[in-house]
Amino acid sequence: MNVKSETNYKKFWDEERETRSKEERDIIILNRIQEQLEYVYNELPFYRKIYDSHNFKPSDVQSLDDFTEKVPIITKKMLVAEQKENPIFGGYAGNFSEDEIARIHGSSGTSGTPTFYRVSKDDWNRAADVHAMAQWAAGIRPNDIMQIAFPFALFFGGWGVLQGAERIGATAFPTGPMETERQLDLLFKIRPTVFSATPSYCLHLAKKGKELGYDMANCSVKRLLVGGEAGGSLPNTKKALEEGWGASVHDCASTSEMYPFQTNVECVAHQGVHVYTDEVYAEIVHRENPNVRVESGVRGGIVYTHLWRKSQPMIRFWSGDESYIADETCSCGRTYPRLPEGVLGRLDDMLIIRGANIYPSAVENIVRSFQWSGPEFQIIAEKKGELDEMTVKIECLEEKYSEEQIGTWKQEAEAKLKVNLGIRVKVIIVKTGVLDETIFKAKRVVDLR
Amino acid sequence: MNVKSETNYKKFWDEERETRSKEERDIIILNRIQEQLEYVYNELPFYRKIYDSHNFKPSDVQSLDDFTEKVPIITKKMLVAEQKENPIFGGYAGNFSEDEIARIHGSSGTSGTPTFYRVSKDDWNRAADVHAMAQWAAGIRPNDIMQIAFPFALFFGGWGVLQGAERIGATAFPTGPMETERQLDLLFKIRPTVFSATPSYCLHLAKKGKELGYDMANCSVKRLLVGGEAGGSLPNTKKALEEGWGASVHDCASTSEMYPFQTNVECVAHQGVHVYTDEVYAEIVHRENPNVRVESGVRGGIVYTHLWRKSQPMIRFWSGDESYIADETCSCGRTYPRLPEGVLGRLDDMLIIRGANIYPSAVENIVRSFQWSGPEFQIIAEKKGELDEMTVKIECLEEKYSEEQIGTWKQEAEAKLKVNLGIRVKVIIVKTGVLDETIFKAKRVVDLR
Repeated sequence: MNVKSETNYKKFWDEERETRSKEERDIIILNRIQEQLEYVYNELPFYRKIYDSHNFKPSDVQSLDDFTEKVPIITKKMLVAEQKENPIFGGYAGNFSEDEIARIHGSSGTSGTPTFYRVSKDDWNRAADVHAMAQWAAGIRPNDIMQIAFPFALFFGGWGVLQGAERIGATAFPTGPMETERQLDLLFKIRPTVFSATPSYCLHLAKKGKELGYDMANCSVKRLLVGGEAGGSLPNTKKALEEGWGASVHDCASTSEMYPFQTNVECVAHQGVHVYTDEVYAEIVHRENPNVRVESGVRGGIVYTHLWRKSQPMIRFWSGDESYIADETCSCGRTYPRLPEGVLGRLDDMLIIRGANIYPSAVENIVRSFQWSGPEFQIIAEKKGELDEMTVKIECLEEKYSEEQIGTWKQEAEAKLKVNLGIRVKVIIVKTGVLDETIFKAKRVVDLR
Repeated sequence: MNVKSETNYKKFWDEERETRSKEERDIIILNRIQEQLEYVYNELPFYRKIYDSHNFKPSDVQSLDDFTEKVPIITKKMLVAEQKENPIFGGYAGNFSEDEIARIHGSSGTSGTPTFYRVSKDDWNRAADVHAMAQWAAGIRPNDIMQIAFPFALFFGGWGVLQGAERIGATAFPTGPMETERQLDLLFKIRPTVFSATPSYCLHLAKKGKELGYDMANCSVKRLLVGGEAGGSLPNTKKALEEGWGASVHDCASTSEMYPFQTNVECVAHQGVHVYTDEVYAEIVHRENPNVRVESGVRGGIVYTHLWRKSQPMIRFWSGDESYIADETCSCGRTYPRLPEGVLGRLDDMLIIRGANIYPSAVENIVRSFQWSGPEFQIIAEKKGELDEMTVKIECLEEKYSEEQIGTWKQEAEAKLKVNLGIRVKVIIVKTGVLDETIFKAKRVVDLR
C-alpha cells in the first residue's frame, strides 16, 4: 500500500507565498496589521476599551516597530474576564449573524470555566488552507494515511489537524484518544503513514507497543505530527520519538487561542518550526516588557497576532511561551522565520527553585537522555524548612534491575541535572505504572509550596 | 440570537430530486441498480463469488421485481468473515489508490473485531450532500446552531451529522459525549437550536437537567435530531422527548454499513421517516425469505442497497431492522416513500418468551407511557425451571414515594404489559441510580437463558 514517492507532487503548497522575500512579506504584514487594528478598534468594544485606556490609536502604527512598541498586549486572563463580563463570546467576538458562523468550540476548561471560540465560515475555511500549507511543508501528501489520536470534541484538539489532512486530500483516520491496546491494534491493522498526537502520548505508545510485542521501530508510520504541548522540539524527546517509531518528527508549536494553530510547523528539513508570519504574526519580546522586541537568537516571550481572522481576532496575544527566532532562510526554500528549537517552555510553567529558573521542558530533555528512562516523569517542588526542594521521579523502562544498578542510575541522573540546571535535585527512580500514564497532555509538575 | 424564520430559505434542498414522481424515480433507481450490479460483479471478488454460487448474472435484472427476487442478500456476518479472510477491507472494498480515499472508519467493535470502512473522496463528498438534503427536510437551516453529542472517533457516529450540518452551513458545536453536567452547562450557555444524540441520551439529559434545576422544557433547542438506535419513532418515547425538551423530534433510522446513513430522516411534517430511495434503495421483504417483497403496510425486514457508493458498496444488505413502508406522498411535498413508524425493532433483538415474539422497542413504548417512569429500564429474560420468564425493571422518576404507591404502579404496569405483549411479565420498580445511566447507546436486554 504505502507508496511514498513525493516526486509526483508539487514541492510547495503556495510557492509564491512561501518563498517571497522578507521585505515583500513585511509590507503585506504591515498592511494586514493596519487593517486589523482599524477593524478591532472600530468594531470590537474589548479592544476599543483597552486601546483608549492606553491612548493608542490604530493610525499610530506606521511600521512593524510601531506595532511592537505601541500596541498593548492582551492576555488569557483578560479574555476569560471579558467573557465573564460579556457572555458568551466577549466583546472581541465580532458582529456576525448565525448564518456566518461555522463552528463553536471551547477550551478544555480543566481549570474552571471554559473559554469559548466562535469561528466564522470565512475564518474556518481559511484555517483549512493554512493547516494544509503547514502540513504540506511537513511532507504530508494526498497518498498519506493519517491516524489522528487528538480528541475531537469541545476543544480544537484534533479538528485543526483533520482540516489540514482533508484539504490536502490525505486519508484521515480519526480515532481520537482510546485505550492504548486498541490504538496500537488499529495502527498495525490500518498501517497509517502519519500519526498525530501529543509527544507524550506518542512516547507512551512506543513503549507500550514494544511491551506488547509490536515492532514499533519498523511500523508503517513515516512521520509523527506532534503538538499540543512542548516536547516535539526538545532534542532528546525528539530522538526518543524518532527511535521509538522509526519515524521523522514534526513539531507543531502554537496555542488554541491562535486558531488556525498549525502556523508553526516543522518542515522536512528539520531546522526548527517555520512561523507562518503572514497568517499569524509572531514577535519575540522581552519577558518583562512586551513592548520591547528582542533580537534574533535571543530568548523572549512569544506574542501572536491574527492577520486575517475576523471572528475573535487576537491582536498581540501574550502566549506565555518562550522561544527565540532565526531569520535565515531554511534549506527547504521557505523564507519564513523559524523557531530553531520550537517552544522552549511556558513562562508560566517556570519554577523558581532557590533562585534558579527551572523549565519543566529542560528537565524533560535531560530525562529523555537516559536510555533506561520510560515515558513518564514527575517534578515535585516543596518547601523543606526555609528552603525549596526539587525532586524528579523518573520511570524506569526496564522491568528487572538490581538495587545496585538503580543506585548508579540515580547518581548519574542527579549529577547531570545539577550540571544542567545549576541546582541540586533529588532523583527517585520508580517502576513502570507508579506514575499515571499520559494519554493526552502530560501533567509533569506538582508544586506543593 | 436564535432567529428562526424559515421563510428566507428555500423549501427543498434539491426540489427536482425530492419531488419527482415515483415512476420517474423508479427508472433512475433501476438504472443505478443495473450499473452497480455490473460494477460489483466485475470489480469486487466478494460479490462475484456470491453471485456465481447463486448462478446470478447482473443482466438477469431487468426490473425492480427482478432485483428483489433474483439477487442474493448479504449479511453483517458475511462482511465480518470476508474482512477476516481478506484483510483489511475485504473483497468488497473496491480498487482505489490512496489518493482517492477520504476516510477510514470502523464499527465500534464492542462485540469483538471491528469492521473497517474505507470511503472514497467521491463517496464522502456525495454523503455530505445527502446528509444535508435529509437534515434540510428535518428543518435544519444555516441559522441553526447544532450541538452534536454523538462521538467523533473510530465509529461513524457524529461524523455524518456533522457533514450534513457543515454542508447546510449551520453552526456546528461538536461536543461529543461528555459528563452530563458539562453537556447541560454547555447547552444552557451556547443555547443551540438543534441537539443531536441518541434518544436514550436525550431522555437522560432531560431528566438530569430538570433535577439540576434547568428549565429543560423551555430550553433553546427547537429540534432534536436523534438516531443510532430505535426510539425516535416510538410514540411514547417521542412524546417524552418532545415534552422533556419542548422540542420537535426527528428520527433518523439507518445503519452504519449504509453510510451515508442519514438517508431515512423524519421531515417537519412528522409522518414517519422519509426513505431516500434514489440514494440508498430500501426494500421491505419477508423476514424468512428476503427474495420476497411484502406489500406496503406489511411488516418485514429492511434490505438496503447503495445506488451510488463505489467504495464498499452494499448491495441488498440485510439490516436486521423491521419496519413497514407507506407509498403515499408526505404532506411536506417530498415524494419519497416513508417508514411511518420508523424502525420498529431489530429482528435480531427479538426475544422469544414462551412462544411470543417480544421486541424491546415494544416494551420501551409501554414503559414510556408511564408518567412516573425515568429514562432507564431493563428487560431480563431467564429460565425458571422449564419456562421462560421475563422481568422488566423500570426506573422510578420520583425521589419519594410510598410503598402503597409503588404497589399500584407495579400492578398497572404488569397489566398493561400483559395486554400489549400477550404474556405475563414481572415488573420491578427501582430507584434512580440502580440502573446504569445511558450516555451513548442504551443496552436494554439481559438474556440469562
